[in-house]
Amino acid sequence: MKDFIIKGHILYSLDPNTIKSCPDSCLVCLDGVSGGVFSQLPEQYRDLPVVDFGDKLVFPGMSDLHMHAPQFSFRGLGMDLELLEWLSTYTFPEEAKYQDLAYAERAYHSYADHLKHSATTRASVFATVHVPATELLMDELERVGLKTYVGKVNMDRNTPAYLAEKSTAQSLADTEAWLCETKDKYEHTKPILTPRFTPTCSDELMEGLQLLAEKYDVPVQSHLSESLAEIELVKKLCPWAKNYGDAYDRFGLFGGKTKCIMAHCVYSDEAEVARMKENGVFIAHSPESNMNVIAGIAPAKRYLEEGLNIGLATDVAGGSHESMLRAIMHAVQASKLRWRLVDDSVSPLSFQEAFYLATVGGGRFFGKVGSFEEGYDLDAVVLEDSGLDHPQELTALQRLERAVYLSDDRHIFAKFVRGKRVL
Amino acid sequence: MKDFIIKGHILYSLDPNTIKSCPDSCLVCLDGVSGGVFSQLPEQYRDLPVVDFGDKLVFPGMSDLHMHAPQFSFRGLGMDLELLEWLSTYTFPEEAKYQDLAYAERAYHSYADHLKHSATTRASVFATVHVPATELLMDELERVGLKTYVGKVNMDRNTPAYLAEKSTAQSLADTEAWLCETKDKYEHTKPILTPRFTPTCSDELMEGLQLLAEKYDVPVQSHLSESLAEIELVKKLCPWAKNYGDAYDRFGLFGGKTKCIMAHCVYSDEAEVARMKENGVFIAHSPESNMNVIAGIAPAKRYLEEGLNIGLATDVAGGSHESMLRAIMHAVQASKLRWRLVDDSVSPLSFQEAFYLATVGGGRFFGKVGSFEEGYDLDAVVLEDSGLDHPQELTALQRLERAVYLSDDRHIFAKFVRGKRVL
Repeated sequence: MKDFIIKGHILYSLDPNTIKSCPDSCLVCLDGVSGGVFSQLPEQYRDLPVVDFGDKLVFPGMSDLHMHAPQFSFRGLGMDLELLEWLSTYTFPEEAKYQDLAYAERAYHSYADHLKHSATTRASVFATVHVPATELLMDELERVGLKTYVGKVNMDRNTPAYLAEKSTAQSLADTEAWLCETKDKYEHTKPILTPRFTPTCSDELMEGLQLLAEKYDVPVQSHLSESLAEIELVKKLCPWAKNYGDAYDRFGLFGGKTKCIMAHCVYSDEAEVARMKENGVFIAHSPESNMNVIAGIAPAKRYLEEGLNIGLATDVAGGSHESMLRAIMHAVQASKLRWRLVDDSVSPLSFQEAFYLATVGGGRFFGKVGSFEEGYDLDAVVLEDSGLDHPQELTALQRLERAVYLSDDRHIFAKFVRGKRVL
Repeated sequence: MKDFIIKGHILYSLDPNTIKSCPDSCLVCLDGVSGGVFSQLPEQYRDLPVVDFGDKLVFPGMSDLHMHAPQFSFRGLGMDLELLEWLSTYTFPEEAKYQDLAYAERAYHSYADHLKHSATTRASVFATVHVPATELLMDELERVGLKTYVGKVNMDRNTPAYLAEKSTAQSLADTEAWLCETKDKYEHTKPILTPRFTPTCSDELMEGLQLLAEKYDVPVQSHLSESLAEIELVKKLCPWAKNYGDAYDRFGLFGGKTKCIMAHCVYSDEAEVARMKENGVFIAHSPESNMNVIAGIAPAKRYLEEGLNIGLATDVAGGSHESMLRAIMHAVQASKLRWRLVDDSVSPLSFQEAFYLATVGGGRFFGKVGSFEEGYDLDAVVLEDSGLDHPQELTALQRLERAVYLSDDRHIFAKFVRGKRVL
């Protein structure tokens, strides 16, 4: 079915402050792309087949800008350490298990199934250093029909022997072979360069990745200014860098020509922020993770107001849950505490703004994604909230806000990714 | 069945830092009270009937020290205002609806059913000013078998006309009649005096409530030092008070002879803390609510370390969810941010400590509740976590931590309140 109509109570962001509510309306899907939303269906679409979801809520699919697929297996565990200790104590030992393909298959199959039943339609995902397991993860994500970027991770320093790559040259050779193998292999799944973060990536590795980014025109993802101890470490490792971001920028891995996601940006200084804005770097705001690994609270509202590219992320398993709806909740909550405890010159994120970040904000990384305006890729989530019982009448916007706080996978009734129904 | 055995993977707190894990063990229930936990069943219990839950987790029922039953109907809504504006914009108009018994019945029935399927076995609950609806709420909570205190709310000043009680005298007369009507009516449900908070309760009302507390020997619950604007308001209303707590203490409504819960205590000063400790006031720590109404983060770890009475609370609907498991998660997360952003001399709450608060800490308000040690009331939750799939072996403590972050009502398999199975 290439061209069809989705009927329901349709909601999408017009701008960061406005969610448009279209009761009993028609969302036109034309070969994977939105033909617009109509309360009265235009004549030319009268003969298209209709998928009628009644009064269920229909909103744009969400883009998760940052998550670690291999960490899904320990989500909700080991929530007692700061970032660097958390990595060495829980994360690296777990990621080492993905050398075992049988383990990887069990874990990634479950991960992909959970994503399938979530509100997420797009994601940018870290795998591990292991190429075979990374390809297996790409197979799994292709199977469930989400459109994703997946990164084989690069780590050639400050990494325990059981996880480190054999050499910088080997890391780069493996990465290039993997790029060639996967860049045209899948319909939905694409490779993304993934230097883990500056502490585990030598200058030589970064230089090599820059060449690969240019040669194959692939985007890049990494971490930036997440925790104070990490920033101190980067200062020691790259004394030449003006700031943490500069340690990527020097190698052309900080936006500009090469599309780029940087996760966290909790403690970015003015120069770093200015450069991210100039270069169109996408900030993956991960509020729950920033609490769990005791990092702090990123100034998401400021980034949004100043026109930086910013979207939301679950950051599984710094974040405990794959739900982008929960990420919206955490973004609002964290921004309130930031206003109260850190900087009362920046008001909290509104629900509308957080919803915008989860849809339009992050969707922009994937193209025209995150809206139902004509010409956008048709990614849609259908949410059945009748189980969330309540004694009063609610507006659609109230239903949507409630769903963010109260719903779970039981309420994700259907999902479309670029016009294809995947749930 | 008065005497029986619960078999399962049994977990309970020995102290704030230690959760004891007893695989394949027997919890002996003798007329509603724990006879202890045994890996080998003592001879004298050999003939008791066994309820075998296999490898499911069995842990003490949780005590929710503070929630507003009438606000359950708008949980997850209106999360955009600070406390005082939130009350006048969303809360008071909603509470006024409970004058309509048909509305109250619909709302309270749903509320009670949700509590039934939660990990909560004890709760201290605010109703509204309306006596008939409060009694209806008590009927509903009795129906689902939880052991609760329920309070008809008193408000005689700074209250919109549509919600205010007719007069102070009427408020007190209604309260006394309601106390007489309900104090011996139910097996599980007891009345608790509930001056909403100092801003809505005149000195004369407080004086009258003190007499009722003494005459009928009933406990009291209220709010304390939740938000900065509220504290300023109390200073204006009670210029004679040394601090907010003193505005209750003056009327004997602050612990000591009269058992007392104070919700929040985000901004209690040294004198207030000292008096709470001296008087055994129970602090209802409500971390999610404190984020949602932009109050701040209470120093829960400090209260625990200094030996104050403190338990956890969902504070529905400042808190969006009735789950005490989520409250544990929020308590840990909030304490991390407090350490990072407010005061790094107080370390974050560990998972073990937050679990202790949810069980032993709050349970103490209800008697010997919150542990499986011999002599404690047998409140138990059976959690089925096999649906929370994972590729690796987990310890029971890891399974419990995961359940806090990931489980929901689907995973609450069975529940016992003082030895009676209610789910």
